[in-house]
Amino acid sequence: MPDDTKARIIEAGAEIIRRQGFNNTGIKDILDAVGVPKGSFYHYFPSKEAFGLAVVEHHMAHLGAKVRQALDRPDLGPLDRLRTFFAGAAALQAGQGYALGCPIGNLAQEMSDLSPAFRERLDKALSGLARPVAAILDEARTAGELPEGLDPAETAAFIVSAWQGALLTMKVAKHSGPFAAFDRMIFGRLLARRP
Amino acid sequence: MPDDTKARIIEAGAEIIRRQGFNNTGIKDILDAVGVPKGSFYHYFPSKEAFGLAVVEHHMAHLGAKVRQALDRPDLGPLDRLRTFFAGAAALQAGQGYALGCPIGNLAQEMSDLSPAFRERLDKALSGLARPVAAILDEARTAGELPEGLDPAETAAFIVSAWQGALLTMKVAKHSGPFAAFDRMIFGRLLARRP
Repeated sequence: MPDDTKARIIEAGAEIIRRQGFNNTGIKDILDAVGVPKGSFYHYFPSKEAFGLAVVEHHMAHLGAKVRQALDRPDLGPLDRLRTFFAGAAALQAGQGYALGCPIGNLAQEMSDLSPAFRERLDKALSGLARPVAAILDEARTAGELPEGLDPAETAAFIVSAWQGALLTMKVAKHSGPFAAFDRMIFGRLLARRP
Repeated sequence: MPDDTKARIIEAGAEIIRRQGFNNTGIKDILDAVGVPKGSFYHYFPSKEAFGLAVVEHHMAHLGAKVRQALDRPDLGPLDRLRTFFAGAAALQAGQGYALGCPIGNLAQEMSDLSPAFRERLDKALSGLARPVAAILDEARTAGELPEGLDPAETAAFIVSAWQGALLTMKVAKHSGPFAAFDRMIFGRLLARRP
């Protein structure tokens, strides 16, 4: 089943790259993990870069589904849904010892200046992550929950960017402090309606 | 002059690592750039990791001096000083095509899960970057410029973390949008005293 082999290479590669970085991962590391010969790899991917871009697609499909599922909470108002979503994402980080971080953020950091194809794909990926956040903020605005003068799209882009910073800082600090600060500053202040 | 050789190895290495990553940089790349034999490298550094930690020290000394200099503006109030500082840092990023990012953030992303010694040093470095920001916010509080209820230390940690996120996002997006959002959200909203 050739498609299964391709998927297995991508999945194993995504995991290894997430742990040790793209440039620090040899094709051999991936092949050894999956147990397929080198020819197989080049049958599916013309280059290591093409493989890396397939790994980005894989993460985006996975993350996109997770985000949509986590945000599908009709029992909660828009801002509570968003806050609950980030709390869940922070709990996942805690569960993995604040290691690994965001696979998209990691690759963005490592590859944006080294490969135009990666940069372009990762730029789309980060914008893609901001889109559902903007949609929720828009919903909050309609419901009269958003403080005056906040633009949903710009605020969403800032939140996703600040979240990337919090993930990076948690990866270094190995505790939840950066998330607690993110949560309090974003939801307790920036998005809070003052009396 | 042996100390000069050591400094030259660190400086050249810092530049190469900033551009292409730590794991992606071979000792040979650095030696070729400086024009010294391999024995020289191991005379000064017991290992590549020890060399990497010296590169972190180098960046911190350099960044620390730059931050102190940029913040030494007795003509401006504390929050204006801080805002001007980040605007200057963003202009530097623009001047280098939004490439390279923050050398400390880059290494934190790449090395925190791969080397406990790096993680520990980079954790101290990021906390060290938050300290002068906290001092300014404390000054702003004394001057009655800080909104009620904001803790200077936690707010400073959040700002430094969100700034790391903005640097990462600029590196991918290659435009000033992420800085504009950071500036408006942090200084136009979070630190602004509402009427």
